[in-house]
Amino acid sequence: MRRSVRIGTVADMILLFTDFGYDGPYVGQLKTVFAATAPGVPVIDLMHDAPAHDPVAAAYLLAALAPEIPEGAVCLAVVDPGVGSDRLPVALAADGRWFVGPDNGLFEILQRRSESAQKWIISWRPERLSRSFHGRDLFGPVAARLARGETPPGERCPDDWRTHPARPGAAWPEEHNAIVYIDRFGNAMTGLRSVSISGSQFIIAGGARIPHAAVFSEVPPGRVFWYANSCGLAEIAVNRGSAAALCELNIGDAIAVA
Amino acid sequence: MRRSVRIGTVADMILLFTDFGYDGPYVGQLKTVFAATAPGVPVIDLMHDAPAHDPVAAAYLLAALAPEIPEGAVCLAVVDPGVGSDRLPVALAADGRWFVGPDNGLFEILQRRSESAQKWIISWRPERLSRSFHGRDLFGPVAARLARGETPPGERCPDDWRTHPARPGAAWPEEHNAIVYIDRFGNAMTGLRSVSISGSQFIIAGGARIPHAAVFSEVPPGRVFWYANSCGLAEIAVNRGSAAALCELNIGDAIAVA
Amino acid sequence: MRRSVRIGTVADMILLFTDFGYDGPYVGQLKTVFAATAPGVPVIDLMHDAPAHDPVAAAYLLAALAPEIPEGAVCLAVVDPGVGSDRLPVALAADGRWFVGPDNGLFEILQRRSESAQKWIISWRPERLSRSFHGRDLFGPVAARLARGETPPGERCPDDWRTHPARPGAAWPEEHNAIVYIDRFGNAMTGLRSVSISGSQFIIAGGARIPHAAVFSEVPPGRVFWYANSCGLAEIAVNRGSAAALCELNIGDAIAVA
Repeated sequence: MRRSVRIGTVADMILLFTDFGYDGPYVGQLKTVFAATAPGVPVIDLMHDAPAHDPVAAAYLLAALAPEIPEGAVCLAVVDPGVGSDRLPVALAADGRWFVGPDNGLFEILQRRSESAQKWIISWRPERLSRSFHGRDLFGPVAARLARGETPPGERCPDDWRTHPARPGAAWPEEHNAIVYIDRFGNAMTGLRSVSISGSQFIIAGGARIPHAAVFSEVPPGRVFWYANSCGLAEIAVNRGSAAALCELNIGDAIAVA
Repeated sequence: MRRSVRIGTVADMILLFTDFGYDGPYVGQLKTVFAATAPGVPVIDLMHDAPAHDPVAAAYLLAALAPEIPEGAVCLAVVDPGVGSDRLPVALAADGRWFVGPDNGLFEILQRRSESAQKWIISWRPERLSRSFHGRDLFGPVAARLARGETPPGERCPDDWRTHPARPGAAWPEEHNAIVYIDRFGNAMTGLRSVSISGSQFIIAGGARIPHAAVFSEVPPGRVFWYANSCGLAEIAVNRGSAAALCELNIGDAIAVA
Repeated sequence: MRRSVRIGTVADMILLFTDFGYDGPYVGQLKTVFAATAPGVPVIDLMHDAPAHDPVAAAYLLAALAPEIPEGAVCLAVVDPGVGSDRLPVALAADGRWFVGPDNGLFEILQRRSESAQKWIISWRPERLSRSFHGRDLFGPVAARLARGETPPGERCPDDWRTHPARPGAAWPEEHNAIVYIDRFGNAMTGLRSVSISGSQFIIAGGARIPHAAVFSEVPPGRVFWYANSCGLAEIAVNRGSAAALCELNIGDAIAVA
């Protein structure tokens, strides 16, 4: 039985899921905000190479990672091509965890898969709000407040928000027939949960018809296959090689199941 | 009103500003020193891709980031092409923050823009001082001492140090007409504070005459512009493209304002 | 006099030595495990670009870094091309530090150079064990237990394990005549401790006969040399250049001393 988010209790940890990259001062400035305004709460880089400027791919990736995020955690998630536009900042309470970020569909898949989910539109604004770095100026301070056990500084959405047809991402499918992440070895995660397909099925990607294997060592070096990865997604890989290079795969590329 | 650095009080956080990169054991060994000798003080990577071996560019970048460094913080800053030479290690108390690093001008711009600034020449030396990694062996342990609330292990400079003509960086201008940082998207930060130029002025860089825009979405995709970035610097960017690639910009390249 | 590992006492820090890279969610998921199950223990990235899939090179690199790992630390080390095979998980107590990882020789060089070393075969298995990410599912939880002061969940090896001829890595030499790491500037660490060769000797690598220098500034720009690096290894470098590019060096390449 999932518990609710804990108002009045300090969070166990703050997780960061962004497309900022580790380069530059961006993650460091964000962490400075947390150290100053939510001292004592450990801050963890979940990943900073989320699909850049691509909330759709990021939504499926974050939803795959969400089951490993413990209750009592606050997750700041920023993949936000609309920074500076009129997209709204939101806070989501889902199965005992907080998620803070832009209301652009990034949390849509995760909320569909959660038992409980409440959403707040953040109305608070900082004294100084840069036009290009809401992570530091807006989302970070809000996440720090939630980590301290405060309530979201804004208005809670009516109960029908989870199925409202006008919500961002409402039209997105349950599984995403596309590449959502490519790691440094060239393994390509898809937006398909591995439980949604069977081991006798093939993934069609980059013109290749790709069979299943349970582990890398089952296939000869250089051969492409798909397997159920540790996040629960179907991932395209090559034993001792790069699937992205071999099949010319990029984030966002469409795939099919056959 | 700025307060002084806090002698006798544990620091709120230690910030790291280096050109070490995340690769290799260098940052990890530095953090091991802090965990062992200043336990309980959070350590934050502000950035590890500061302009490599370029204290001039790094000085302007660090000065732009300094206003976001909270009072009560210790900042270890190492961009140190002279490691192993006779350049001196220093500690700087500036507007309630400590800065520790090499006396090669890295703190010159920041001290000019600070209300209060005292400087110490560090005379302490560790039992073992490697010739290539003073970050771990010398600057790190000194920063850890300051983080524990101790006084700098060395001699305080006379009050006229801030304007002494022989100090490193004394001849550097108030604004630096050059590229000081390029991020992974190819956006190029200049050493010009955005308040030093007006939106009707152009930046000349890489042969291009670059107009101002307030935000990325104001310009069509592929067009180069400059804007006031979240650090307060004029930054050259391309909407959905790489300014560094389009204009062939590198760190250290001269620019002009027209 | 080295003390023993501390059973019943919380560790001072957890160090991570892996070939996961910073990209993707892997390190973040590992740290989430620690924040949830060993709260309050600082977690430090020692390095995440250990020689990928190369336990031999990694063993010599880890042994070079080990003297800087303080007593009271737990080091999770994962370079594990055999994940999913029948290689065993182990915990090693060496001179007051814990090491947790795969039993593939990764700890062999370090144990040879330790005064005291006990080894446990980990028999505990998690409820859910992914086939590709034992770092998160198996090694991480075991390291967290040790960090909390618990005993290793498994069987201690008989006292003769340190010299048993069937142990992984038993045949590896004391010094490794090969490149074990290349940093982002192209400096190439060898598996030779610098104390094992004299400054009058040359290293033969990539067809070049490379002389010794004490520091970078002793050689003209563009010239290749070797020096005793801050980890105690002989490292091949070029003043203001890339030794890896100039001499076409890769991790694993054989070298010789002449």
